Amino acid sequence: MKKLINRSADVVAESVAGFAAAHADILRASADPLFVVRAEAPVAGKVGLVSGGGSGHEPLHIGFVGRGMLDAAVPGAVFTSPTPDPILAATRAVDGGAGVLHIVKNYTGDVLNFETAAELAAMEGLTVQSVVVNDDVAVEDSLYTAGRRGVAGTVLVEKIAGAAAERGDDLGGVAGVAQHVIDNVRSMGVALTACTVPHAGRPSFELEDDEIEIGIGIHGEPGRHRVPMASADAITDQLLDAVVADLRVHAGERVLLFVNGMGGTPLSELYIVYGHARKRLEEAGVVVARSLVGTFVTSLEMQGCSLTVLRLDDALTALWDAPVHTAALRRGI
Amino acid sequence: MKKLINRSADVVAESVAGFAAAHADILRASADPLFVVRAEAPVAGKVGLVSGGGSGHEPLHIGFVGRGMLDAAVPGAVFTSPTPDPILAATRAVDGGAGVLHIVKNYTGDVLNFETAAELAAMEGLTVQSVVVNDDVAVEDSLYTAGRRGVAGTVLVEKIAGAAAERGDDLGGVAGVAQHVIDNVRSMGVALTACTVPHAGRPSFELEDDEIEIGIGIHGEPGRHRVPMASADAITDQLLDAVVADLRVHAGERVLLFVNGMGGTPLSELYIVYGHARKRLEEAGVVVARSLVGTFVTSLEMQGCSLTVLRLDDALTALWDAPVHTAALRRGI
Repeated sequence: MKKLINRSADVVAESVAGFAAAHADILRASADPLFVVRAEAPVAGKVGLVSGGGSGHEPLHIGFVGRGMLDAAVPGAVFTSPTPDPILAATRAVDGGAGVLHIVKNYTGDVLNFETAAELAAMEGLTVQSVVVNDDVAVEDSLYTAGRRGVAGTVLVEKIAGAAAERGDDLGGVAGVAQHVIDNVRSMGVALTACTVPHAGRPSFELEDDEIEIGIGIHGEPGRHRVPMASADAITDQLLDAVVADLRVHAGERVLLFVNGMGGTPLSELYIVYGHARKRLEEAGVVVARSLVGTFVTSLEMQGCSLTVLRLDDALTALWDAPVHTAALRRGI
Repeated sequence: MKKLINRSADVVAESVAGFAAAHADILRASADPLFVVRAEAPVAGKVGLVSGGGSGHEPLHIGFVGRGMLDAAVPGAVFTSPTPDPILAATRAVDGGAGVLHIVKNYTGDVLNFETAAELAAMEGLTVQSVVVNDDVAVEDSLYTAGRRGVAGTVLVEKIAGAAAERGDDLGGVAGVAQHVIDNVRSMGVALTACTVPHAGRPSFELEDDEIEIGIGIHGEPGRHRVPMASADAITDQLLDAVVADLRVHAGERVLLFVNGMGGTPLSELYIVYGHARKRLEEAGVVVARSLVGTFVTSLEMQGCSLTVLRLDDALTALWDAPVHTAALRRGI
């Protein structure tokens, strides 16, 4: 295992400390309990947004803390849910009197620990609502999930719900917007290589030199099937067909097309995938009105990508276009 | 070799086409000759900025085309300089009557082909000046270079010179600002793994499982020495010591600290490197006034990073902070 780390037990704490030092204009970090919070939190009268989950998916979630997106992010150990304590502390830190929304990816540990934190917060008199992101069409249940997994679509939920909170929507409204995104977003991924969790020291699964895994999860958990290596176009077709069929996208509809790198994939390859997916959608009469291409929801150094389609309407488009100022996504500020 | 590509001969053209489709609000691409140009080019009365070089370093350079940075970028084949023809065409496309600055990384092929293009442009009556970026302190001459190589510092040159052009500086002024950045920026990199050029089909060099290369070039060309794998802190110390000694940074000075991923390195690891480098600089009394952490100048899927220090003054700081709107770097717009 070759990684730019010191002791494997210190990876998350050291990385978050470096991150907070680099972005002190946007956010600050609490070391114990560990969470990252927007510099000006709590913002009086604004709904606070908290997300989190296992580390190893950076820039998700800490890279999306800032004006117009998350108020706090709670990183667990690598690929391990944070416990209720830091989630509760983050919830307190962002409560500006208008309530707090938890954005939770659908993994058993995350759902359980966010629920517990929400109950504890309620006992303190805080108002918390939750949404669960489950955009991965690859499998119904998986190693760590009852129901579908939450993957790259989470970024779109955080951006759009964040914009709704920033313009002053109330808690029910922000939760409604987040759920509307969840209802209209689907993703599927592919792994070309595995990744190595630092404290494990060896790859989390094995792929042959000519083999890829379609429908991979973001923790290396199994997908739909392993197939021989194929062209970018053929792989893109498999991902796009599954996503479009599940989302039931029709000619004349507008979508946001998001091609996400898994961590170790060159940007140039993501644009090849994007170009083919866009062409396929346009041939089907679908309007690709917005795009996102880059490395946003990762599995450490895994090579591969995921493809996400969000059905847009005017309301979602305006919220997507709203200004945002985070470490990993910035626009208009 | 597992890559998200179709035919290896089509990698650059397909990737650039996808890139241009995703960012049509910022830029457009010419397919033959191949270059990418800012949507509103030429901007009357503004100095035009052109950079380019072999592909495989994305987002450099195409990701930095847009308002406040480059007017055009010319991608060659992977790790291969573009020929004079597309450089000349890009130079014509961005000439708004105030002259054109070529920003060239110091590799023999790039320098020669940009020189030829500049001479051809001059015969057409265009005014062209050039600067050569050579920020890599690792080696004096290398496989493809007489003198030092141009590496990650190129991003800082493009951003700061781009801001000077945007505010209306004349050609001599913009070239002077670019040279001022070059005079005050130094970098050094490390490779944990090699990368594979698509048409070669196998890694460009071999590293043992417990071996890294200090001072690596961005094409996998040799660095200073191969050493056993070490901690992030120990590796960071080696890079930082070399950069700081060469730049002669002193206590009380302000710097921009830039930690750049080589393509396959998780963002979390870059922040560990950043955190340690920042601490070391602060302990030496150096003020880290600005920061950049991310994957900007790559070697395909290579794992590793580079560390860059730019000595700041008020003028450079203001230009660094100026608004920019490109695919890979955006602020204030």
